[in-house]
Amino acid sequence: MSSNPNPTPRTRVVREPQRAVYDRDAVNQILDEAFLCHVGFVVDGQPYVIPTSYGRAGNVLYIHGSAASRMLRNLDQGIPVCVTVTLLDGLVLARSVFNHSMNYRSVVILGTATLVDDPQEKITALRVLSEHILPHRWDDSRQPNEKELKATSVLRIPIEEFSAKVRVGPPIDDEPDYTYPTWAGVIPLEMRSGAPNRDERCSRELPEYLRDYSRKGK
Amino acid sequence: MSSNPNPTPRTRVVREPQRAVYDRDAVNQILDEAFLCHVGFVVDGQPYVIPTSYGRAGNVLYIHGSAASRMLRNLDQGIPVCVTVTLLDGLVLARSVFNHSMNYRSVVILGTATLVDDPQEKITALRVLSEHILPHRWDDSRQPNEKELKATSVLRIPIEEFSAKVRVGPPIDDEPDYTYPTWAGVIPLEMRSGAPNRDERCSRELPEYLRDYSRKGK
Repeated sequence: MSSNPNPTPRTRVVREPQRAVYDRDAVNQILDEAFLCHVGFVVDGQPYVIPTSYGRAGNVLYIHGSAASRMLRNLDQGIPVCVTVTLLDGLVLARSVFNHSMNYRSVVILGTATLVDDPQEKITALRVLSEHILPHRWDDSRQPNEKELKATSVLRIPIEEFSAKVRVGPPIDDEPDYTYPTWAGVIPLEMRSGAPNRDERCSRELPEYLRDYSRKGK
Repeated sequence: MSSNPNPTPRTRVVREPQRAVYDRDAVNQILDEAFLCHVGFVVDGQPYVIPTSYGRAGNVLYIHGSAASRMLRNLDQGIPVCVTVTLLDGLVLARSVFNHSMNYRSVVILGTATLVDDPQEKITALRVLSEHILPHRWDDSRQPNEKELKATSVLRIPIEEFSAKVRVGPPIDDEPDYTYPTWAGVIPLEMRSGAPNRDERCSRELPEYLRDYSRKGK
């Protein structure tokens, strides 16, 4: 296991430094609860940000290359990326407009994305991606064939240069504002699953692993 | 109202072009339901992606400059950005691993972010940001004073070069896979609010506008 060089000058949290987290375990916990990231890359000086799912295996993040085909056109020996993962936990309503905020947990990873060439690593990575989003689903699906594997590209991003930013708790107002006559507190927000919607060409009962889908405690 | 030049070569959807949407009204609908974006910008060739809230006024998006202070350091006559907004609507479970997908609505805006200098536009923009996230809250909060306004920076991003990508509906499997013995369908996902958590130093009743907070139908 590599040592943790964080923060680097590039990942040091500039705004609200008291919210910064550089601990790998805390970062992994955020990465494991979420499964959607926003990948940033540069083409001809123009930044692009693309949403895509990811999976984590140790200190490596895997994403589908197909999600960023503009990026792949320029991928040769690797391309600098920024992968950002954000969990929104609530609206923080202070007495003053100025002290309104949000509760959130976010991770920023800077690194070089490279194409996974090795067929064995590719299939492992695809399994990691699948299991990260929905455990047990891989084994309960029709496995990828050669043609599908060829049509899929996977990128590897090392989780080496990173930082997280976390805000929790109630609003913090300036002392004189506490008497201001308004409601103050937090409106919690959470991504929740609804009742599974079975495909009309499927007659199977819902399996156990699809009941009450939730990201909590991942 | 400006004409719609979209897609440009930079915003044309490359992957899954059948999911592309270039209609401004459809884009605005996505922008109005969400309030979190991921802003991409470039410093020394390195992309950065920062989550932040936004507000929309006509064909302009406003974000807090403070959310991207690394970016602001480099802001002079404006800086190229990519603003991406993503609403996740569900996990799409196909019979084959390969045809698994997600239902989502996302918008990508390319443009140049510029600092809002005019004090009147700044306060209008802050109100837009606040009302976008939580209507009625601005008037029910202690208004910003001169010092707070000075400490706040706001960026303006024109919504001129954009595209959206939308996937809805059930899984689409290869015909021979429809007999594969697994559950198939969609697990709907939605951001929901929980019971408001009143600050312990507040004794006010919850106002009407804070009940059942939801982004649907915005």
